[in-house]
Amino acid sequence: MSSTATEGGERQLVLLRHGESVWNRENRFTGWTDVKLTEHGIFEGVRAGELLMRQGMRFDIAFTSVLTRAIRTLWLVLDEMDMPWLPVRRDWRLNERHYGALQGLNKAETADSFGEGQVLQWRRSYDVRPPALEANDPRHPRHDPRYESVALEKLPATECLKDTMERVMPCWHERIAPVIAGGKNVLLVAHGNSLRALIKHLDGISDDEIIGLNIPTGVPLVYQLDEELKPVRHYSLGES
Amino acid sequence: MSSTATEGGERQLVLLRHGESVWNRENRFTGWTDVKLTEHGIFEGVRAGELLMRQGMRFDIAFTSVLTRAIRTLWLVLDEMDMPWLPVRRDWRLNERHYGALQGLNKAETADSFGEGQVLQWRRSYDVRPPALEANDPRHPRHDPRYESVALEKLPATECLKDTMERVMPCWHERIAPVIAGGKNVLLVAHGNSLRALIKHLDGISDDEIIGLNIPTGVPLVYQLDEELKPVRHYSLGES
Repeated sequence: MSSTATEGGERQLVLLRHGESVWNRENRFTGWTDVKLTEHGIFEGVRAGELLMRQGMRFDIAFTSVLTRAIRTLWLVLDEMDMPWLPVRRDWRLNERHYGALQGLNKAETADSFGEGQVLQWRRSYDVRPPALEANDPRHPRHDPRYESVALEKLPATECLKDTMERVMPCWHERIAPVIAGGKNVLLVAHGNSLRALIKHLDGISDDEIIGLNIPTGVPLVYQLDEELKPVRHYSLGES
Repeated sequence: MSSTATEGGERQLVLLRHGESVWNRENRFTGWTDVKLTEHGIFEGVRAGELLMRQGMRFDIAFTSVLTRAIRTLWLVLDEMDMPWLPVRRDWRLNERHYGALQGLNKAETADSFGEGQVLQWRRSYDVRPPALEANDPRHPRHDPRYESVALEKLPATECLKDTMERVMPCWHERIAPVIAGGKNVLLVAHGNSLRALIKHLDGISDDEIIGLNIPTGVPLVYQLDEELKPVRHYSLGES
């Protein structure tokens, strides 16, 4: 029935960025804000499930973040593939890059306030952080029950992409890579920047280049990996 | 914000039977067959979420089976409550009673074939099993990847309610009760017979009486438990 069809020793990982969220549409900095999918985002999740189904993909386990837009996208995919029973592991370290005090601000307004050059630097540099959230800011993750089991010093109040990378990679090495190395097919539904971090690692992309890499929403990105989890090939599903 | 409002030392458990499934509607023996929710079943899941939300219920963790109709009902509830991020633990031992070789048969036709008395005995007795599935029957759970980590000798080919009880209770004692005892509010979405097993235990109902207990689909059943997890009171949400 299945045609995952990985050849001798190859392992398969499918990366998927969640569908369009309300704040993607409103052009606001989202980060860890737990916004919902738009109707179009829901459509993108369903379509991703159809594409994976049509391709004959089967998975043994799924990973996702603890943010609603990624979890909902995963649910749409699993529902479409008739496998809501697939084991799911969630990890806060797969969350989007934390955008600090910019979270909730409109990108255009932010440019007006801070200057376009400054905003571009926050958005486009690998290691420059936006202003941090104060600990008593209600937007700080320490006030959110979903993070209550995470050590306070690990919870970000702002991040540059380098910071995101540095928390995504331990999750990869501890939880995800061993499962793939064990021969399981993995579906990973996450966010623009947590996926950039993974792709930077997998494809050995430089700090400067990774910032320019755009990952489209709702498009399954198939990685076939060798026994050392190096990419043999990768391709997108459904691009015309 | 929350008004779970359990008084000193009380713990809260909410039991929910999945919404109507396609085979509920077609009057077929379902058991472990992985049928979907009907449109009405989807409506029941959403309504259960609304009722829990309106009541100010908050949960720390959810448990469910590995059957699609329970998982989908849970998703609908979590989505309605704006908490898709809630940790979810799935356990095959919360599945519906396995209905053996009757799975898929229409209840009326089964009565024609086996005699109404026999069918009533299978349906209404605590410890009489329907005919078992053969190991090579494609409906046998050994052929379903979701059970591949379960020891073969534990996988049922048929069950009476007593058998269901005997696999539900270890799940309760090992995984669920310690969480509630630790002060967490638990949502448990399962099936008519796995819920009967739990309620039999919680309320000390006799073998004969439990068979007659009907659990409506989609109606949250709130149990407040004392420190020894004995029910202090229980009530249904949304009954008019």
